Amino acid sequence: MLPDAENPTVILDETECWDLLLGASLGRLAVSVHDKPEIFPVNFLAHDKKILIRTAPGEKLLQLTVNGSVALETDGRSRTSVWSVVINGDARQLQSGAEIERAEKLGLRPWTSTLKSVFVEIVPTRVTGRRLHTGPEPELADLSG
Amino acid sequence: MLPDAENPTVILDETECWDLLLGASLGRLAVSVHDKPEIFPVNFLAHDKKILIRTAPGEKLLQLTVNGSVALETDGRSRTSVWSVVINGDARQLQSGAEIERAEKLGLRPWTSTLKSVFVEIVPTRVTGRRLHTGPEPELADLSG
Repeated sequence: MLPDAENPTVILDETECWDLLLGASLGRLAVSVHDKPEIFPVNFLAHDKKILIRTAPGEKLLQLTVNGSVALETDGRSRTSVWSVVINGDARQLQSGAEIERAEKLGLRPWTSTLKSVFVEIVPTRVTGRRLHTGPEPELADLSG
Repeated sequence: MLPDAENPTVILDETECWDLLLGASLGRLAVSVHDKPEIFPVNFLAHDKKILIRTAPGEKLLQLTVNGSVALETDGRSRTSVWSVVINGDARQLQSGAEIERAEKLGLRPWTSTLKSVFVEIVPTRVTGRRLHTGPEPELADLSG
């Protein structure tokens, strides 16, 4: 179902969210240390109901080794709507040679040409999404009746 | 200075960051409650070295009334580079009629046609940005010499 002026917000079910995630690659990762949120743009790959990202060792992104609780958001737009999917979950760095090898075979390309050799996997605890109609804001008067 | 294959990352100074923020409108807001990060797409307006966003009362975004510490990220790309600017700061809901009126005059449009009648102002404590060259990843061999 697509949103329209009368129903400007459509909640996406989990299947629709994964469908959008599978077609997306650029997201933003939110982490938190001592309740101070940080946010990083990341390239990601959705695979097997998990999210894979790559980062460089020592990068600030490794805040997630202090607190693995993360949120990842990706979004996109069509002519009359925008969608946004958010994954909440737990992140951990891939450690064993076998799992790193498997991750490499998935072909996740980093966003930039800087070397990024650490794989981080996010196992979702919640996947939510919304599709929103993008039109002019309804007037207050429209809602009062 | 633009990044290239030899210098793939360029740190942006604060003036460059604000220049990019003034031209951007879509960002993602990261908040944290009990060290659980959340992330929301938001429409924003940079004005007078502050950030203004709009939200609806009762929306989850009001997590920031529990913890006003936030991070806001926006990004964009050109043919050979991507840039990302992150603002860390403190968010508060505008309360007085005078400041809400001032905010309304700035003409911030919400992202969608759902009614969003609460203004939130973010006063930055830190503004950082990077511009990254987007080419193929350097081979490990390139970095070993």
